[in-house]
Amino acid sequence: MPPLLLGDDDVRARLDAPTAVTAVRQALLAHHAGTLTAPPRVRTGLGDGDLVFTAGQLREQGLHGFRVYDDWDRNSDQLVAVWDTGTGRLRGLVHGGELGPRRTGAIGALAVNALARPEASRLGLVGAGVQAWTQLWALAAVRHIDEVVVSASRPARAAAFAERAWRELDLKVRAVDSAERAVRGQDIVIVATNSPTPVLNEEWVSPGTHLTTLGPKTVSQHEIPAALAERADVVVTDSRAQVAGYAESHIFGLSTMTELGAVLAGAAPGRTSAGQITVFCSVGLAGTDVAVAAALLG
Amino acid sequence: MPPLLLGDDDVRARLDAPTAVTAVRQALLAHHAGTLTAPPRVRTGLGDGDLVFTAGQLREQGLHGFRVYDDWDRNSDQLVAVWDTGTGRLRGLVHGGELGPRRTGAIGALAVNALARPEASRLGLVGAGVQAWTQLWALAAVRHIDEVVVSASRPARAAAFAERAWRELDLKVRAVDSAERAVRGQDIVIVATNSPTPVLNEEWVSPGTHLTTLGPKTVSQHEIPAALAERADVVVTDSRAQVAGYAESHIFGLSTMTELGAVLAGAAPGRTSAGQITVFCSVGLAGTDVAVAAALLG
Repeated sequence: MPPLLLGDDDVRARLDAPTAVTAVRQALLAHHAGTLTAPPRVRTGLGDGDLVFTAGQLREQGLHGFRVYDDWDRNSDQLVAVWDTGTGRLRGLVHGGELGPRRTGAIGALAVNALARPEASRLGLVGAGVQAWTQLWALAAVRHIDEVVVSASRPARAAAFAERAWRELDLKVRAVDSAERAVRGQDIVIVATNSPTPVLNEEWVSPGTHLTTLGPKTVSQHEIPAALAERADVVVTDSRAQVAGYAESHIFGLSTMTELGAVLAGAAPGRTSAGQITVFCSVGLAGTDVAVAAALLG
Repeated sequence: MPPLLLGDDDVRARLDAPTAVTAVRQALLAHHAGTLTAPPRVRTGLGDGDLVFTAGQLREQGLHGFRVYDDWDRNSDQLVAVWDTGTGRLRGLVHGGELGPRRTGAIGALAVNALARPEASRLGLVGAGVQAWTQLWALAAVRHIDEVVVSASRPARAAAFAERAWRELDLKVRAVDSAERAVRGQDIVIVATNSPTPVLNEEWVSPGTHLTTLGPKTVSQHEIPAALAERADVVVTDSRAQVAGYAESHIFGLSTMTELGAVLAGAAPGRTSAGQITVFCSVGLAGTDVAVAAALLG
């Protein structure tokens, strides 16, 4: 039987958020248990830029594979390939741009669910691109959200985001005209920009908030203030190895970071009081894209 | 338009030897001209072994891509992916085990054609596996071969090889019961085994012979005698960078090796007299598999 080949239309039609979240949850727990091998990404330099490969082997599911993307500045087709480890047969391939962000959304939803206060129901989004969208898409499947506001550097994008949320997720989202209005007074803040400089002020974040940062977070380029990283009581990432593997240090100290898989397994504390600020530093654990692709390929 | 997905049946049905040889020739010349970027292979370690990626960018054709295979001991499905560099769209995918050896066969055919004496027409094959097969498949498309003999460690395989050559290539091949009988008196010798120790004796090789070695060729494991490597007058490889990138030294000194692309371009001498022994040390230039896949994908 030839491997299944799926594209963005298939991902949109067939991959629902609970499926993605379940697959990613299983992969995060497997990573904690040591049954997901997820080595640091490898790169190979071509004339125009690098191809980047993130591979993983899910031992319990008998699967391995990788995702590949390029780092030159375009929206090129990514590819995820999944093999049955036992037989060596290629199970399937997923190409395009839809799978990766949905996987990241599922990781983020699990982080918010584990780290935000139980009653947290007001969400502020800074950024209205595909990463912000898939965070909301996945989060709506695991948490009841009462109120969502979104801001973007281009206001029309925030408005379009709100309209899409209403149409596709049946969620009322209010587009606001500043990051401050998106952040102040929220229980949950998700920052999903490409900005190399902070897009919010740390005073806007109240005690008890959970904040997720998707965009730049190195010492020289970061979308949230370094002061907020210092003020955070609990900092969690999906992969300490990947944080350690960055060429440049993060604004978060690696020594104080907990892994999301450990929190989900109950092996490490997450939030321990209502007043704490929790931060999730999303780096995209390798192998989670293979897990989501495998769930989609069936 | 979704990327084209082709498998082994498609490769067998659609990829003829002249097409493979033409694509590889173009890639070797591009590598010499500096328009094929072919970095050393990269590996990522999973629980059961490594995934190995060989990537290449063919600037003149506006293509880039990679091949991936694993190094654990099975016959698993390989995958070649080809992108249009300009648009970032995935043009197509080829999976299975057929493309890689045919690409290697095409490289070998170009090497024999460039290095063997013009009148060389007697071929001896040591080894009767897939690599030996594709060497013959490609060579028959570029050279008139009068007489072929083949030996294998398992004689039944040599007999099956001969039968297949008759059926598929309309070539008379004689199966012989020893490597000595496959090597002595030939103009062209192709050694394609997995043997870590020499399968032939250097005295069996007459002056004027061209010899290709496909299998192990490091100092600790080599299928041809180290003495033969010393005796060779001209040593050519498809990629000096890949030879240099091996963890262990080759039995051939890198400093004396010429690249096949340079010989094909007329920029470096190959054989300069009828009595010389020429050796082709095949390592599989990265990017040539992408070139053959691109030719197949159309």
